[in-house]
Amino acid sequence: MSAKPLLIVAGIGNGTGTGAATARVFSKAGYRVALIARNAEHLKHLVDELASSGGEAAAFPIPEYTYDAVEHVWDNIVEHAWPSGQPSDLRVALWNVGVNVFGSFLTVTAKDIQASLEVHVTAGFAFSRKAILAFKKNELDVNGSKGTLLFTGATASVRGNVFTSAFAAGKFGIRALSQSLAKEFGKENIHVAHVIIDGSILTDLSLSRRPGEAGEAWKANPDLRLEGESIAKAYLYLIQQDRSAWTWELDLRPAHEKW
Amino acid sequence: MSAKPLLIVAGIGNGTGTGAATARVFSKAGYRVALIARNAEHLKHLVDELASSGGEAAAFPIPEYTYDAVEHVWDNIVEHAWPSGQPSDLRVALWNVGVNVFGSFLTVTAKDIQASLEVHVTAGFAFSRKAILAFKKNELDVNGSKGTLLFTGATASVRGNVFTSAFAAGKFGIRALSQSLAKEFGKENIHVAHVIIDGSILTDLSLSRRPGEAGEAWKANPDLRLEGESIAKAYLYLIQQDRSAWTWELDLRPAHEKW
Amino acid sequence: MSAKPLLIVAGIGNGTGTGAATARVFSKAGYRVALIARNAEHLKHLVDELASSGGEAAAFPIPEYTYDAVEHVWDNIVEHAWPSGQPSDLRVALWNVGVNVFGSFLTVTAKDIQASLEVHVTAGFAFSRKAILAFKKNELDVNGSKGTLLFTGATASVRGNVFTSAFAAGKFGIRALSQSLAKEFGKENIHVAHVIIDGSILTDLSLSRRPGEAGEAWKANPDLRLEGESIAKAYLYLIQQDRSAWTWELDLRPAHEKW
Amino acid sequence: MSAKPLLIVAGIGNGTGTGAATARVFSKAGYRVALIARNAEHLKHLVDELASSGGEAAAFPIPEYTYDAVEHVWDNIVEHAWPSGQPSDLRVALWNVGVNVFGSFLTVTAKDIQASLEVHVTAGFAFSRKAILAFKKNELDVNGSKGTLLFTGATASVRGNVFTSAFAAGKFGIRALSQSLAKEFGKENIHVAHVIIDGSILTDLSLSRRPGEAGEAWKANPDLRLEGESIAKAYLYLIQQDRSAWTWELDLRPAHEKW
Repeated sequence: MSAKPLLIVAGIGNGTGTGAATARVFSKAGYRVALIARNAEHLKHLVDELASSGGEAAAFPIPEYTYDAVEHVWDNIVEHAWPSGQPSDLRVALWNVGVNVFGSFLTVTAKDIQASLEVHVTAGFAFSRKAILAFKKNELDVNGSKGTLLFTGATASVRGNVFTSAFAAGKFGIRALSQSLAKEFGKENIHVAHVIIDGSILTDLSLSRRPGEAGEAWKANPDLRLEGESIAKAYLYLIQQDRSAWTWELDLRPAHEKW
Repeated sequence: MSAKPLLIVAGIGNGTGTGAATARVFSKAGYRVALIARNAEHLKHLVDELASSGGEAAAFPIPEYTYDAVEHVWDNIVEHAWPSGQPSDLRVALWNVGVNVFGSFLTVTAKDIQASLEVHVTAGFAFSRKAILAFKKNELDVNGSKGTLLFTGATASVRGNVFTSAFAAGKFGIRALSQSLAKEFGKENIHVAHVIIDGSILTDLSLSRRPGEAGEAWKANPDLRLEGESIAKAYLYLIQQDRSAWTWELDLRPAHEKW
Repeated sequence: MSAKPLLIVAGIGNGTGTGAATARVFSKAGYRVALIARNAEHLKHLVDELASSGGEAAAFPIPEYTYDAVEHVWDNIVEHAWPSGQPSDLRVALWNVGVNVFGSFLTVTAKDIQASLEVHVTAGFAFSRKAILAFKKNELDVNGSKGTLLFTGATASVRGNVFTSAFAAGKFGIRALSQSLAKEFGKENIHVAHVIIDGSILTDLSLSRRPGEAGEAWKANPDLRLEGESIAKAYLYLIQQDRSAWTWELDLRPAHEKW
Repeated sequence: MSAKPLLIVAGIGNGTGTGAATARVFSKAGYRVALIARNAEHLKHLVDELASSGGEAAAFPIPEYTYDAVEHVWDNIVEHAWPSGQPSDLRVALWNVGVNVFGSFLTVTAKDIQASLEVHVTAGFAFSRKAILAFKKNELDVNGSKGTLLFTGATASVRGNVFTSAFAAGKFGIRALSQSLAKEFGKENIHVAHVIIDGSILTDLSLSRRPGEAGEAWKANPDLRLEGESIAKAYLYLIQQDRSAWTWELDLRPAHEKW
């Protein structure tokens, strides 16, 4: 394999969370990175950052996470003429997309639940389809894999709580898909894994919700919150598992998390 | 309570499955029954049958299971002038709606997954919203309940298998909702329960898939398949639980089922 | 069946909890009841109470819950010359035995964990063996069952929490047994069910932990705690399920329980 | 940290399975290894093998897995004068002990269930106690951990099947412990993890059950069975997780496993 392997990440946010951290970790590990997100500016920022660190990255803005838009942006990635001119070798795809819809069930509108299902699940089906079809064409790598499809889950992937009805409906749904895929395509040496993030991730957004000294203390203490980079390392571990021992699901939480 | 209590069932199929059996069992137990389904003819047939057994039933055809259509049909039910002229006293609502989408993941189209999510989950959110809002206005009944919202689940509610990706995504999603609702509205004495049907139900459809003697043997042996009436009795039990001991979830399967 | 069916309950405590309530509910439903417990006085008290209500009950004190002691007491029950002189027709057996071992893991002694495993699991294996062997000789009843073996579970049956290590080890273990039994003996029309009690039951003991007005308020409000009788009714429901739709597991909690 | 860190592994078998592979992988990664097993000869063999590869290992035979014997052997390890004369720095402990008890429930004797509970659970409590007490004295390492306690689980840790009643009772029980410990001692920066092995591991024993060409084909194909070394790498990954993202549980199975 002379060409660099390619990672596709969908869900970059403003560049401070799991998706961006995964792009950084994999870039450093020798992957080209194709980034999908709604905000073109954040995307460009991350691409520049990765390039300045010697990585190869490209931005693929998407207007919204729908089935068609995901298919379309994926086609763009495949057709993308990478700087080096070498063909891409897609090996890893991460579905890290989420929409925050929380609140009492009675405040959930038709639009809220439709958005949660479309973004988390329907668009995730399109992403998975493209990934599986691409992986099927691959040769086995040294670990006996044709490719790894990763999903970022949450506490709400396995538990419906008060105030999470619309969010959990989406997260449960995409977890179901990941399990079906793991069972159907493991037999074709395609690895599918689902990671349950059971705690708050340190991002600009989560920090902004904790103003003042409390926020500073929380930021400073890795016992209390997840770091995107640590989650990214879990993804890196998963793609390095050999085919005799593949994980479908693991959980991740800070050491001091109450659960 | 001089008025008969009212049961609303969504999902009647051709009248041989769980929804219709629940209508029969509750009708016999003294409930008025409002029936929602897509096929007006089957609905009429069941209404007539219930009436001929001394029950009070009304049919509410729905063009398709969408958020808006469910809201609309629900309003029709509430405004319905029941034969007796008495106001309705809604006490039980059963979301028994499902769409069969099975097959290899690669055969699942955008339309398939959208349909599964819309019918199972989005329309289920509308149904739940209407039920919860109605129940909130009720007084406590003798069991300390303002109403019971029931969901018919399946094996695919808790396990994504090969060939069930689209179906399981919908069933996982609505199960998440049921858990969130149980937690949020238990505190208001509204009971929410989810029943996992882990086996094949004896219906015209399931029987048609087993032609010949094998089908006759299967039909004749209750050790091998579920009966709608038995499921309905589970629902009847659930609404009779007193508030000191409410079930969120139970499983049902034939005695000889391999699991 | 001219003879009354027989229920065996192990775990009566001081007569204010689940086991005793089950004895009362089944006695009223026409069952003879054989009661196993460590405290002979409490047993006698309950037997007298059931007799005074027209029931037939007999006490079988057990020195401690060990494999051998359970086998021995079971043989006593079988050989017992029931007042009416009719042969017993064992139909239901309830394993309701538990030992309270809570506290930080570091306070758990060798004796604590051994006691939890012996009482919950090892003795439960002996109880189950006797029940299964007895049920295998039965004819099918009207529900298509040769007998029902019931287990009282707890939150700790499915979740190990801080301070529950020794208790949960025992409760997880016996739940595993119940699942294996349900799968192996369902095929022989023996019904095995496990009920997860997810909340505090109103007993003398639980009430004594809530002194003063708070305890009175808690006692008075069925939204806050389980009643043994309500749990017993769940058991009564389970034995009435017909073989086309058997439950292995259900949960029970008060309406206002936070979970 | 000038001293090498120490790994204690209980459960080495004949040196072809998970425990031995973990000793090899950690030895190569710079750990001293203390090995606990019942067979002194197998232990000596593995110690010699590790030494010949430049590792430092010592054998600690145990007559049987009881609470007291585990405490005793653990004390021996702590007092052991390691060849280099440096104090040991215990950082990882793996409970990999198991007893094979399979068969119809009716063939399970009192001795079988007692052995399964004693070996899997009671002895595991002793092992865990010693590990936790030792870890509490440690300083944080670079990952923010005072030590990692690992448990080898199995399919039977989460599912009771026909023929696994005694085995599953033990495996469920120790899993409960691992969850309680993860919750109680995560707060003290002690990491506890449980790994579900969902498939057959390639060992002398599992190979002997597949005689002839079928066995050779099975041995040759890592898509079909787990390798101890691959499981060991999962353990190595777990101890390298930083405290912002710790895993309690993950599953491992071969790529082609049907599940």
